[in-house]
Amino acid sequence: MTQTKPALEFKQATLENGLTVIAEINPEAKSVALGYFCKTGSRDETPEIAGVSHFLEHMLFKGSATRDALQVNLEFDQMGAQYNAYTSEENTVYYAAVLPEFAPRLLELWTDLMRPALRQEDFDTEKQVILEEIALYEDRPNIMLFDWGRARYFAGHPLGNSVLGTTRSISALTRDQMAAYQTRRYAPSNLVLTLAGKVDWERTLAQVQELTATWTKGQAGRDYPDLHPAVGELREPYPKATQTYLALLAPGVSAQDPRRYAANILANILGEEGNSRLFWALSDKGLVESVGAGVDEADGAGLYYIYAQTDPANEETVKAVLRDELGRLEREGVRLEELERAKNKLATALVFAGETPMQRLMSVGINYLYNQTYEPLSEVARKVEVVTLADVNGLLETRPFSQSFIYSLVPAQ
Amino acid sequence: MTQTKPALEFKQATLENGLTVIAEINPEAKSVALGYFCKTGSRDETPEIAGVSHFLEHMLFKGSATRDALQVNLEFDQMGAQYNAYTSEENTVYYAAVLPEFAPRLLELWTDLMRPALRQEDFDTEKQVILEEIALYEDRPNIMLFDWGRARYFAGHPLGNSVLGTTRSISALTRDQMAAYQTRRYAPSNLVLTLAGKVDWERTLAQVQELTATWTKGQAGRDYPDLHPAVGELREPYPKATQTYLALLAPGVSAQDPRRYAANILANILGEEGNSRLFWALSDKGLVESVGAGVDEADGAGLYYIYAQTDPANEETVKAVLRDELGRLEREGVRLEELERAKNKLATALVFAGETPMQRLMSVGINYLYNQTYEPLSEVARKVEVVTLADVNGLLETRPFSQSFIYSLVPAQ
Repeated sequence: MTQTKPALEFKQATLENGLTVIAEINPEAKSVALGYFCKTGSRDETPEIAGVSHFLEHMLFKGSATRDALQVNLEFDQMGAQYNAYTSEENTVYYAAVLPEFAPRLLELWTDLMRPALRQEDFDTEKQVILEEIALYEDRPNIMLFDWGRARYFAGHPLGNSVLGTTRSISALTRDQMAAYQTRRYAPSNLVLTLAGKVDWERTLAQVQELTATWTKGQAGRDYPDLHPAVGELREPYPKATQTYLALLAPGVSAQDPRRYAANILANILGEEGNSRLFWALSDKGLVESVGAGVDEADGAGLYYIYAQTDPANEETVKAVLRDELGRLEREGVRLEELERAKNKLATALVFAGETPMQRLMSVGINYLYNQTYEPLSEVARKVEVVTLADVNGLLETRPFSQSFIYSLVPAQ
Repeated sequence: MTQTKPALEFKQATLENGLTVIAEINPEAKSVALGYFCKTGSRDETPEIAGVSHFLEHMLFKGSATRDALQVNLEFDQMGAQYNAYTSEENTVYYAAVLPEFAPRLLELWTDLMRPALRQEDFDTEKQVILEEIALYEDRPNIMLFDWGRARYFAGHPLGNSVLGTTRSISALTRDQMAAYQTRRYAPSNLVLTLAGKVDWERTLAQVQELTATWTKGQAGRDYPDLHPAVGELREPYPKATQTYLALLAPGVSAQDPRRYAANILANILGEEGNSRLFWALSDKGLVESVGAGVDEADGAGLYYIYAQTDPANEETVKAVLRDELGRLEREGVRLEELERAKNKLATALVFAGETPMQRLMSVGINYLYNQTYEPLSEVARKVEVVTLADVNGLLETRPFSQSFIYSLVPAQ
């Protein structure tokens, strides 16, 4: 049997109501993944409604005008769906994967949930769940380190807003405030319906057009105030802590910046867990419980981060080693063999992160939210492949770690 | 461009030294997974060397005659490999996935590690790690429930042996005992080298032939004593427990039994977390913290299990509900709609568990160890599809839950 070799195909359409639909179609796939990617998160909140994006994400699973929470659960279960959702500083994503025959049913379900009932009784019950979640997280210094550290670092810029919100903001939040936020931020123009895997494009498009026919247009913007990040050091006592938790934050590159592959490679060389400069200088020497580095690519801004957990007695030594390593990195740059190893690892990680429709859904959807473009996996791999020493070392010159902010949570005296 | 549609191809060869090599080749895959599947585990141990299989698994990562532990770590890291190993009652599996260009290097590394150095110093260090692991697990009632419960249930049959061993057996174990066990149990005839994904079969075969040219033949059998499982109830106090942990064990079907799909469906209907008979009868009523059911398909034997965690005050009520539900199941059987929903979910789960080379490696390798056959995913799905009400209800008649053993760990007085 011979036939045309199936290649991945990308499709895109914008409906009259403003909803964008995109798909990476793989006819060989055995499953289909689909989800709504909403460009909203804690950075789009005012202090009065801090945490509403995340709380709203929970509320969608409580159902729509025609479905209650039990019904929602049962329907996902009957399809055997793998499903979940998450909220970050910038995005709220609802996603699931099913066998291709269930795709129309799954699309109908998610689309219905995008217009949630927000029943007062569900709202009151879920508020308690969120408050418990906040209380639970406040007992986890490794989570609060970045929540509080980002707030101090971004110094008033909305990228420093907490995803969870605070006990005070959640306690005071009303159902009507949430409904107003939902109407504004879940406007079709602020949503991207993404599909990946064995997708029937024409059928999907016809179905979503019908399902969203009554959705009204809307306009949801985003503020991009100037960024004046903190520099220097800040130590704060943390009740119950017996260790010191340290986060270094420094200006990196945005999700739209072509230098982001170089930035990822740099973070890998510097702080990958298990084999990196900081691993050998700190973990291997027994100076820290853990250490790592990474990048956070955001909308129009980005940062490098380094974290370490250490015995309080070693805090100053750890900071000195960190300064030494960062100084050496800025002075000497990275070596060719380090670059090659990091590129290998990044390319491999990309392949492993793109083997299933569910994984492709996440890459394709998030990239589209930030860049309004499609990149096949092969193109991403090529961009990693072409990164040169000059790219990485050039980045170090324009984004030096000497402009960093070190935030630490230390045991209370 | 037209070309022959690539189908998954299965290959198999047995080398002169007795080593079997199998591969499921997918030319479209972007990665390759490979691993050594060794038919040995705690059931193949005598009481004197209890835990040696698992301890030995740790020791392989300490290196061979020509590599130390650091070198092994670095090499996996340079390849960007995803790698791990595990030991069960019956199998020890070493597995990894890499980009296709690293496959020869990965094969060389794993093959070298199959003949570990077992250096005395490494042995002594790792013994402490294992002893700490045992101490850690003994603080976890949900793990010890099955470790101890199986021991009581199998009542002297080696399937009741603990994977971890005991503080006493590990403390007394010598390096030479481990070396003798390794030589005997890791004979080529007891290993299956499995590959999946983008495999170059001819090259692999030539390479492994060369790499294992000096491996000597050996014979590693397995005992299959008669099974006389416990029936009835046993309650044991558990220090520090504040909850009651309950395990029900009952004869199921083996990994070689064609009725195993019916058995899986039955366990799903009975006890899937989130939506099943026991979920609605116990979890939804607030009588348990958690409840679930499953199957354990072993070599020549198998069992159903149910577990529940409950407030001690509810223990008798939970047991009564459990008996009621099992009695009703035996009397009335399952309904067609339950069967269809469970089949849907099982078929979907199978697809999700077979989308990457790493996942296929595990299915293909384990199935081969038990059945010495290859089953494409489509054939497995077909076997689920054809299960009838008569199959499931017939199984209930030959494997009634009334022959079960209920083991519980209860708070010490």
